[in-house]
Amino acid sequence: MAEKNITPLAFRQLIREGKFTEPTSGYCPGFAQANLIILPKEEAYDFLLFAQRNPKACPLLEVTDVGERLTKYVAKDCDIATDFPKYWIYRDGVKTEEVTDISSYWQDDFVAFVIGCSFSFESEMIDAGIEIRHNTMGCNVPMYITNIDCVPAGRFSGKMVVSMRPIPSNQLVKTVTVTAALPKVHGSPIHIGDPKEIGITDVAHPDFGDPVEIRPGETTVFWPCGVTPQSIVMNVKPKLAITHAPGHMLVTDVKNVDLKE
Amino acid sequence: MAEKNITPLAFRQLIREGKFTEPTSGYCPGFAQANLIILPKEEAYDFLLFAQRNPKACPLLEVTDVGERLTKYVAKDCDIATDFPKYWIYRDGVKTEEVTDISSYWQDDFVAFVIGCSFSFESEMIDAGIEIRHNTMGCNVPMYITNIDCVPAGRFSGKMVVSMRPIPSNQLVKTVTVTAALPKVHGSPIHIGDPKEIGITDVAHPDFGDPVEIRPGETTVFWPCGVTPQSIVMNVKPKLAITHAPGHMLVTDVKNVDLKE
Repeated sequence: MAEKNITPLAFRQLIREGKFTEPTSGYCPGFAQANLIILPKEEAYDFLLFAQRNPKACPLLEVTDVGERLTKYVAKDCDIATDFPKYWIYRDGVKTEEVTDISSYWQDDFVAFVIGCSFSFESEMIDAGIEIRHNTMGCNVPMYITNIDCVPAGRFSGKMVVSMRPIPSNQLVKTVTVTAALPKVHGSPIHIGDPKEIGITDVAHPDFGDPVEIRPGETTVFWPCGVTPQSIVMNVKPKLAITHAPGHMLVTDVKNVDLKE
Repeated sequence: MAEKNITPLAFRQLIREGKFTEPTSGYCPGFAQANLIILPKEEAYDFLLFAQRNPKACPLLEVTDVGERLTKYVAKDCDIATDFPKYWIYRDGVKTEEVTDISSYWQDDFVAFVIGCSFSFESEMIDAGIEIRHNTMGCNVPMYITNIDCVPAGRFSGKMVVSMRPIPSNQLVKTVTVTAALPKVHGSPIHIGDPKEIGITDVAHPDFGDPVEIRPGETTVFWPCGVTPQSIVMNVKPKLAITHAPGHMLVTDVKNVDLKE
């Protein structure tokens, strides 16, 4: 365990030492958190183009130089291979391993895509008086594969993944305005209301993360999610891809306020 | 000549037929205008990464599929090779030709980067009661190569190009807020005030476009400019690059209002 108000650097250090392997929602409030997908250079152009064409699902915070493990822009002393609490290894589109360190998997041709995460704006929502249910329940955010097609790019195509937060009806407007101000960490919701309209048949059984309680008078609100690359990888089956484990994010040194224009 | 309120499609048709070859500022108000750089596929990854790392200078509106002349996202019936009023051909970093049609230059390995242009937000500024000097003078916007380093990516590096508009002091705040709302067409200014602070020694002699009158009580305001790729090309000297001629933009079907979050 760690103090919620720990600095990003100290938090990454704990994670690097293997002392924290849990979901990161609620930690280091005010700092942007990030998703990950790593691909070999030969796949990187198509994925970079995919991210450009799908900026709400895949807002890029940093793309590393080929083979470079250390980030240059989102954080100092930050190692892509050790500073996420948990990683998933995908081979031919199938998750084969879950590990807390990918140093032994590292290849000289790897490119890491560091993608904004909606955990980032949760502290702004809390400041605005909005309860974050998975946070108060102490579990991971529920995530779902939708029927929304991403815009294809090269070999990459597939369905968008979304995160869900139940919001009281009288806070929906505030929820939109607070999150819309931060497009680099997904920004405004993609859908407010009936989950079936975006192909989610059972909110009680998310594809990733944990289910959360939805109380009377609350509306389900959905944001594009940086786990979308996992859905894409499952669809197009590249030989090798490494992602973070959903909910187990990198905490960057970038303040949310600096992601505003 | 053309009516200023012509539709984007009709305007592109005129341009395609060679009947309009002038700067496009003021045409089709409310629709996003776009810069261009075309590079062979082997250079495209580095440039795509460059744009990702320099989003204020190079906000991407569309990146075409390899070899594809028609745009898919920013406009219908829109041919990259004919629908800009004027193009510049760069060979080894030197501008060698100016043409109004690049059909005969087209290669199967070309990738076109369609980049947001600050002409887009001029109609919003005019609606807000702000005079656009180059517009009222009937000339091109002044553009300058600054001393601001872009963030390098692969082989691409160099100085940022900016556009300048003189603004009365009592309209500076409005100028920032109106333009900040449109980050996909450069957004907020990069500098307000003394041109020397960003390495511009003589505002009367722009590097691209035309000089404009600066009246007493007006402050020079600078925006990152989509001519930046020209400065980069002049610096890193790729074998072949094709750009639009500064000020001679593509008018897209995308409404500015749809570029807001």
